[in-house]
Amino acid sequence: MGGDHGPPVTVAAVVDYLHRSPGTDIILVGLPDAIETELRTIRAATSDRLRIHPASEVVGMDESPALALRGKKNSSMRVALNLVKSGEAQACVSAGNTGALIATSRFVLKTLHGIDRPALAVVLPTIKGHTYVLDLGANVDCSAEHLLQFGVMGATLVSTVENKEKPSVGLLNIGEEEIKGNEVVKQAAELLRDSGLNFYGNIEGNDIYKGTTDVVVCDGFVGNVALKASEGVAQMLSTYLREEFRRNLLTRFAGFVALPVINAFKRRVDHRRYNGASLLGLRGIVIKSHGSADSHAFGFAIARAVDEVRGGMLHHISERVAQLPHHSKNSSSYSQPLAEESPA
Amino acid sequence: MGGDHGPPVTVAAVVDYLHRSPGTDIILVGLPDAIETELRTIRAATSDRLRIHPASEVVGMDESPALALRGKKNSSMRVALNLVKSGEAQACVSAGNTGALIATSRFVLKTLHGIDRPALAVVLPTIKGHTYVLDLGANVDCSAEHLLQFGVMGATLVSTVENKEKPSVGLLNIGEEEIKGNEVVKQAAELLRDSGLNFYGNIEGNDIYKGTTDVVVCDGFVGNVALKASEGVAQMLSTYLREEFRRNLLTRFAGFVALPVINAFKRRVDHRRYNGASLLGLRGIVIKSHGSADSHAFGFAIARAVDEVRGGMLHHISERVAQLPHHSKNSSSYSQPLAEESPA
Repeated sequence: MGGDHGPPVTVAAVVDYLHRSPGTDIILVGLPDAIETELRTIRAATSDRLRIHPASEVVGMDESPALALRGKKNSSMRVALNLVKSGEAQACVSAGNTGALIATSRFVLKTLHGIDRPALAVVLPTIKGHTYVLDLGANVDCSAEHLLQFGVMGATLVSTVENKEKPSVGLLNIGEEEIKGNEVVKQAAELLRDSGLNFYGNIEGNDIYKGTTDVVVCDGFVGNVALKASEGVAQMLSTYLREEFRRNLLTRFAGFVALPVINAFKRRVDHRRYNGASLLGLRGIVIKSHGSADSHAFGFAIARAVDEVRGGMLHHISERVAQLPHHSKNSSSYSQPLAEESPA
Repeated sequence: MGGDHGPPVTVAAVVDYLHRSPGTDIILVGLPDAIETELRTIRAATSDRLRIHPASEVVGMDESPALALRGKKNSSMRVALNLVKSGEAQACVSAGNTGALIATSRFVLKTLHGIDRPALAVVLPTIKGHTYVLDLGANVDCSAEHLLQFGVMGATLVSTVENKEKPSVGLLNIGEEEIKGNEVVKQAAELLRDSGLNFYGNIEGNDIYKGTTDVVVCDGFVGNVALKASEGVAQMLSTYLREEFRRNLLTRFAGFVALPVINAFKRRVDHRRYNGASLLGLRGIVIKSHGSADSHAFGFAIARAVDEVRGGMLHHISERVAQLPHHSKNSSSYSQPLAEESPA
């Protein structure tokens, strides 16, 4: 039912997306009344390309993922994921509660053969362009095998949606020469080196934004802290800059003159372009939109889902995981035949 | 012998510092020829307040800490730390190889009773002012007890040098509601809650720069990644901004008008003011200056050392650690009588 803003954002984005993209059909899953009201508001209607699938419950943004999973079997999130499982839909896009989406996706869809845990990959801007960082989905206490799987999934995502044949993969580590990282990261580096991936080696936090590699692998704890710290710095710098421009009449005038430049700068770091994190490693495509996304941003999340479906990402991930040297040892307890891997 | 730039930076900073601060004497430790050459260049001389203590070796900036510790018993770093151990100096300030400084400090000075590992605390700017983050000294694979000790040392540092009676302490964690952090962090939160510190609770990466707490506690891996990622973002944003101002004649004119504002902004985020990381938990005061510090920045590192000595920080840390509930259980194997704790 659409994150912080609900149908006013998601329904508008969907209608706009369908106008722009003839090849895609969309199912709106949620409380039918709320969806229909929103469709009327923007003078849109259902069609053979835009259906409503009812769900009677909504997972709150602050709700416990475990409670949502156990207690709300008819939530819009759960129903949408069931549509992916049954093959009626090929992907699920949600701006809802991240923890609940991960837990419910994992329960409903299960992980792919050879993948222990799903991981959330986000796109971040770099000096050169952009990079994919995973995990940002709260996978804490990761093993070296998990980090290896993240590397495989991240590289497959980039090769699928960016058409890069051998994306480079960096392992997020610390800079001290002698003491290169903790034990898990050291082991992960060895596994990645033997994985057949284009493994660049260890990288440091600043390499994320330098764009040193196409993919950055880290555990969910480190990834979350790095991302939030980055947001904090950007916020602080923008507050400082605003304050300096507002200091007196002269600086206000300077700000007025510089406004077009500042605005161009803001467009360049507009995080809406990067909206749509990929929940990887499941038997279905799931995209997490930022909860506070506007309809412009939500459109990017839909486009990402379509790209992953068209690129056959699930199939590629399965193939790559199967090629890993240690593959059979680390296969998941969730493993099942790949029946619903490429829903028609 | 002074980091990336050597005596031209450190000797100039020391001479300048002595002019400004009548109550302090300084011993320059290193290759006498290099130091004397630099003194002559800036037309300064030794005096009863400025002595040279010879050391015949220098640890390279990229040298392995273990090799430096084993192989260079007469390095400037080692000799300076020996002066602290013997009580001839009350603090050591170094812009040298971080890993070697930590390893050698730990070996020469030993840790205080109740402290297992020394931690490196840096000052970072926030929207409100600044905050102290530790560990940034590559303590990876930390236990909950280590994080507790970092909290105690960080709070003591702030109360000593900032005169804050009950500095607030935050534990760096991730944002997911249900799955709050890894096991070690969960246990550390419990220990911090029972520690008698002004424990704020869990904080997230962006809270560092919001200035939510006076002290931010994290393991050295997470701290390093967060800091480097922050530097990366700041670097990327400043590159973007410069590029936008250089786009064409009009934007260059805007940049010219806005120059005083941009410069005021730059002064505000000038990291040189924050130079001087405190290596805490040792039986002596050790300050790590940034390797690339200029003499202005190096002066701040000297001032920090003097503040810690004058505030009696080692004594305060020992007192606080002794008050911890679990203190005796977690005391260090390095423990020794506190003979050289407050060298005269």
